[in-house]
Amino acid sequence: MANLAELGERALVGRLLEIFGEGGTTALGDDAAALRIGDRYLLLTTDVINERTHTPRGATGEQIGWYAAAVNLSDIAAMGGKPFALLASFSLPRELEAARLEAIARGFRAGAAAYGAKVVGGDTKEGAEVSICGTAAGWTQGTRILRRKGAQSGDLVAVTGSLGRAAWGLARLAEKPEDEEALEAILHPEPRIREGVILAEHEGVTACMDISDGLAVSLGQMAEAGGLAYEIVYENLPADSRLSEFDDALQKESLLFQGGDFELLFTCQPRLWEDLVEDFGRNKVPVTPIGQVRVSGENRLRFRGEVEVLEAKGYEHFR
Amino acid sequence: MANLAELGERALVGRLLEIFGEGGTTALGDDAAALRIGDRYLLLTTDVINERTHTPRGATGEQIGWYAAAVNLSDIAAMGGKPFALLASFSLPRELEAARLEAIARGFRAGAAAYGAKVVGGDTKEGAEVSICGTAAGWTQGTRILRRKGAQSGDLVAVTGSLGRAAWGLARLAEKPEDEEALEAILHPEPRIREGVILAEHEGVTACMDISDGLAVSLGQMAEAGGLAYEIVYENLPADSRLSEFDDALQKESLLFQGGDFELLFTCQPRLWEDLVEDFGRNKVPVTPIGQVRVSGENRLRFRGEVEVLEAKGYEHFR
Repeated sequence: MANLAELGERALVGRLLEIFGEGGTTALGDDAAALRIGDRYLLLTTDVINERTHTPRGATGEQIGWYAAAVNLSDIAAMGGKPFALLASFSLPRELEAARLEAIARGFRAGAAAYGAKVVGGDTKEGAEVSICGTAAGWTQGTRILRRKGAQSGDLVAVTGSLGRAAWGLARLAEKPEDEEALEAILHPEPRIREGVILAEHEGVTACMDISDGLAVSLGQMAEAGGLAYEIVYENLPADSRLSEFDDALQKESLLFQGGDFELLFTCQPRLWEDLVEDFGRNKVPVTPIGQVRVSGENRLRFRGEVEVLEAKGYEHFR
Repeated sequence: MANLAELGERALVGRLLEIFGEGGTTALGDDAAALRIGDRYLLLTTDVINERTHTPRGATGEQIGWYAAAVNLSDIAAMGGKPFALLASFSLPRELEAARLEAIARGFRAGAAAYGAKVVGGDTKEGAEVSICGTAAGWTQGTRILRRKGAQSGDLVAVTGSLGRAAWGLARLAEKPEDEEALEAILHPEPRIREGVILAEHEGVTACMDISDGLAVSLGQMAEAGGLAYEIVYENLPADSRLSEFDDALQKESLLFQGGDFELLFTCQPRLWEDLVEDFGRNKVPVTPIGQVRVSGENRLRFRGEVEVLEAKGYEHFR
């Protein structure tokens, strides 16, 4: 019988979806659950972060709390919703300084408040390590909702913001532990709530998800959900300017296979792309086309004029 | 600076309520957050259970999963709501057998399904121990909601079901590890959803909460929330019949100061008590009056004709 290290996170999630799906729900498999309530959707999502795997040395309590809120808010953004409430369940070792927990709580509240949500509940329990399980609730603005599936062959593939910010932070920390700019790059992502709302309101947008596990993995998941394939042009990827510190191989790794950027990956009908760009006109965060949806086959990467298979590899828990 | 062991769970929760409350929310401090949506309330709650503190040796995965669902559903029951969705974030060690996780997931789904809710989402992350963070969402049937505050002086104090079931299980396990009946008594609580709905629909009911941390602690929390005091008659407590195996001291400890029973503690106007009992007529789970609300002072216990102070002590994490 396999243990989790042998199975890996994605196979494991597949098993859980089967088990929970037996209850008859259709909401599983997107970034957040969507439940129709009158003329809109209630969005619910939960994400847990744990000390050992998510908090680099030197991270402040405020940063950890912000991050715990942000990872949940990003799932609301991916569905095109606006968050209204967050909850936090804390598992904590007895010997933890109370001041540390208070800093985490302040960071969590700050993350919620920055996006118009309130912290409305939570729980505290004794645990082996610091673990913060967040829950976010949001509303769509109407019955339009962004899902992983929905793209059509020929649609443009695009992302918000820039890529590689978290990867830069991780590489930097490896050289310079506790570097403040690196910690901030990793632990202070900005969930794309405003951008998700613009995308959801635009009729040209056909699918969306966040890329927290990395671009290549997310493209794989989107392909799996929608039954199509995606072709990305490497030179079009909007790289964080700091990635230029790295050699070519590490840049490529950072842009494609590293997680931790909470940007939105979406597809858009080509005839409505200019119109969407106009809608983003005054928005500080840009959108960039990076490729196109294909009828079928494997996901592909155009890299310096050559075409290669883009494997859905990236950060995976337990492996 | 204090650590959590020095501070204790309840002081810690007080600090968190202050920090989160600065966001201006009034929903904190009850068993679940209540957000008015049209002509009803959306209820949201989260509770985490951890291997070291919540899962006795011999517990099956199904039992742990059920328990993780039940502790969350009980918070919905305490507010008088009906659950519609559950989510689960799992933190898991790499070496965990996949079959164990699948059993936990089946138990969680069974708990949700038994009360009409679906599992609509979740998360899996690597962690130092098995930790299951549940979230439950529910609706009230109208704008009536049960809160910890609301009791009036002279109201009857009552509980659903019987008390001491979990305490019996714990004491039994101490003598006979892995005893099946004891594990079931602890890990298979039945959230009082149906009972909470009856209570919420009855105009005589003035306050409610669940007693998961123990009766005395819950009475202390209710007194704190409502600014009144509670007098309980020991001989009126509906004891689980198996408590007769214990000596008097352990029986008293079990009924008053042990947590783990997920019954509802509520208050009711005396003139409407008979009417409420009638509403419970066909319900399998009875309600029992156990005391009365007093104007002020400390909570008290009538025990064999004598009156003593009823301290708000019980199970507390970190201590």
